[in-house]
Amino acid sequence: MKTGPVRVAVLGLGNVGAALVSVLLDDAGGIEARSGVALQLAGVAVNDLTKTRAGVPAGLVTADAKALVEDPGVEVVVELIGGLEPARALVRSALSAGKAVVTANKELLAAEGAALSALAGQAGVDLLYEAAVAGAIPIIRPLRESLAGEPVRRVMGIVNGTTNFILSRMSESGLGYAQALAEAQQLGYAERDPTADVEGHDAAAKAAILASIAFRCDVHAEDVPREGIARVDPVDIAFAAQLGYVVKLLAVAERLDGADAGDGPPGAEISVRVHPAMLPKEHPLAAVRGAFNAVFVEGGRAGELMLYGRGAGGEPTASAVLGDVVDAARNVRSGVAGPALPVSPAHFHPADDLRSAWYLNIDVLDRPGVLAAVATVFGDHAVSIRSMEQLGMGDEARLVFLTHIARQGDVMACIDGLRSLDVVEHVGGMLRVLGDEEDRP
Amino acid sequence: MKTGPVRVAVLGLGNVGAALVSVLLDDAGGIEARSGVALQLAGVAVNDLTKTRAGVPAGLVTADAKALVEDPGVEVVVELIGGLEPARALVRSALSAGKAVVTANKELLAAEGAALSALAGQAGVDLLYEAAVAGAIPIIRPLRESLAGEPVRRVMGIVNGTTNFILSRMSESGLGYAQALAEAQQLGYAERDPTADVEGHDAAAKAAILASIAFRCDVHAEDVPREGIARVDPVDIAFAAQLGYVVKLLAVAERLDGADAGDGPPGAEISVRVHPAMLPKEHPLAAVRGAFNAVFVEGGRAGELMLYGRGAGGEPTASAVLGDVVDAARNVRSGVAGPALPVSPAHFHPADDLRSAWYLNIDVLDRPGVLAAVATVFGDHAVSIRSMEQLGMGDEARLVFLTHIARQGDVMACIDGLRSLDVVEHVGGMLRVLGDEEDRP
Repeated sequence: MKTGPVRVAVLGLGNVGAALVSVLLDDAGGIEARSGVALQLAGVAVNDLTKTRAGVPAGLVTADAKALVEDPGVEVVVELIGGLEPARALVRSALSAGKAVVTANKELLAAEGAALSALAGQAGVDLLYEAAVAGAIPIIRPLRESLAGEPVRRVMGIVNGTTNFILSRMSESGLGYAQALAEAQQLGYAERDPTADVEGHDAAAKAAILASIAFRCDVHAEDVPREGIARVDPVDIAFAAQLGYVVKLLAVAERLDGADAGDGPPGAEISVRVHPAMLPKEHPLAAVRGAFNAVFVEGGRAGELMLYGRGAGGEPTASAVLGDVVDAARNVRSGVAGPALPVSPAHFHPADDLRSAWYLNIDVLDRPGVLAAVATVFGDHAVSIRSMEQLGMGDEARLVFLTHIARQGDVMACIDGLRSLDVVEHVGGMLRVLGDEEDRP
Repeated sequence: MKTGPVRVAVLGLGNVGAALVSVLLDDAGGIEARSGVALQLAGVAVNDLTKTRAGVPAGLVTADAKALVEDPGVEVVVELIGGLEPARALVRSALSAGKAVVTANKELLAAEGAALSALAGQAGVDLLYEAAVAGAIPIIRPLRESLAGEPVRRVMGIVNGTTNFILSRMSESGLGYAQALAEAQQLGYAERDPTADVEGHDAAAKAAILASIAFRCDVHAEDVPREGIARVDPVDIAFAAQLGYVVKLLAVAERLDGADAGDGPPGAEISVRVHPAMLPKEHPLAAVRGAFNAVFVEGGRAGELMLYGRGAGGEPTASAVLGDVVDAARNVRSGVAGPALPVSPAHFHPADDLRSAWYLNIDVLDRPGVLAAVATVFGDHAVSIRSMEQLGMGDEARLVFLTHIARQGDVMACIDGLRSLDVVEHVGGMLRVLGDEEDRP
């Protein structure tokens, strides 16, 4: 077995890579004092050698990531390139060569996490990815280890800081979506092309990873239905506030094997999805503002847990990566790998059978009999109304409904039915309302 | 190396022990499916064999804990007896015999955690104690592993559910301390003798454990200055609310090695203490209500993290114990032990040199010149006043002060000076005010 510092290669020198490299160069002594593990930066692979790399010795920088990964002296490979290729090939090459891999690459993990984990298992090395979901927040390790014996029922996360910032601004300052997005772009919280964030792609990849770990099964980003936040109207946010709710974009992964099963086997049906939802303002996730992230876990025995912190940013994310690097380095020196978890195929609960309360707002012509017509459509589709408020607006009226818990298929059919009424101008809102006790999976 | 299920002995059959035993007996299949680890209950040691043990086969129950620990078939010992003896002797005996130990015993760990960890290290086995602090909340493992390379600056926890319930009730319903305590006792949240909770002994033990892990040093419960909640007045809670604060009992562990050090070495000066404090109502800890617990971690790179959940109760605590048992069992089968962390002696920052803002309320005779006299005392002790409010009460007046950040020694001397004034009837409040940016260690 080798001794001396564990040699670490870093692939990619973006925000996170640069923060990690700077820590490895400047705080190796501190890391060793705190963790008992000596780390040494073996090299940094970049795309463009002509850029200046402040503080990184030129001798450590290479444009040949493949050669760096294959360097027999390298024992831990940190992949911070992102995206599918060349990250995938480099990670596979490292694992196949028996090197531990730490990555923050949610796309790659949501595309083939189970296959990569299997490869790591065969090679007897670690594949760790705490930083892939919710930045600095320890969530992967608690789900894998602390809750190893826990029958997790549901995981709900605010895992995208951009959309949480936008929704927080809309909620706290009454901004419209476009204004709040522009502000997020100006502050660097949103990309110029915000699609990946606002359409829920980023959250869906993270939801797939969370579901895979929470339920020990193989979930891919493409398995995750997404609804983004672009259609969330300030009016809905204002109504939500009036009714005691806040609107959040949630990544949800839940097990549906009976209301109180609590300890059903892995392999039971699950639902994994991303959508905006109304949460009671007393819910711990409701207080997660701005660019912060949080993951709320409901366990069969542990009860409610929430893990909160910075979901992005170079230094916070590098901190999570470093925790994994230390873990991997310890295991490299003791000649073991961390636990390989069982992985089953995922069985998805049909979306139409999901049950939830809903918020709908419906613009109608202000005529006698309209409410009766609308209520009839609800009744015809077995969607029970919990509360209704009517607001006059000239020739039109707006009806704001909260429903009781209903089948999603029934609610969708009800919405179609409402749209087909002559007196209905527009059906908006369409937000799930969470937090009632009876809404538990 | 042995194969087959890992044999687990449970010492103690109180709330947590009973919940754990029930899970081990009823959900062994589920645990194996989720974790890949097969566990088998080898025996349960109890004090009184004559009690009925619903659901536990009589053949598994013994009054001879020592013999159970020494049984060569037992590979993991779970100590849930609590208190110092006989828990200490049994844990030492198990570790010396090369058996992994899982415990939720905060008294024992706060008394000799470092010595027991050293013993475990020598024997090459695990000593795990996730459940000793904040019940079901994963906090020990994140601090040990996820944040292994992180320069933690401060850990602040609401780690005692009893006092948090009492303060929440005082805050939300305006109850007095005695009333809220009586309610907590009625609901089973407080013991008949509530001293350990309300005087901060329980929180101090947990603060010692958190500090030991966060700063890799040896802190004992007796090193932790305590202030309890019995002297918190509903008047102070009402003032706090008016000023935008909530009152919480906090366990605080912080490193004081320069305002922005962020990466000082372990062994720098630390402060560990338990006291009620005023937190801004926007602070994530402020929303932790009732019997819930939460631990807020400020890292040099990770930024702010909070871990929230159920801090007590049989099932939630058993869930944390089970996570440790699974971890220990995996390590037993792979023939390794988890990471042994470096431990340095603790160097404590003098309490008088701690810096904080303070809330004081002072009952004075309502005479001309009184405010000047009071203000002179503040000035003489270099305590700068941030805000003052005066309320008339007949012949008396109440002066409510918030100070700027000041040395604790100066504030204490100032309070002594105020008490020695003829016109001062009473100095109350005396709560630290946290959350200003400048208040960071």
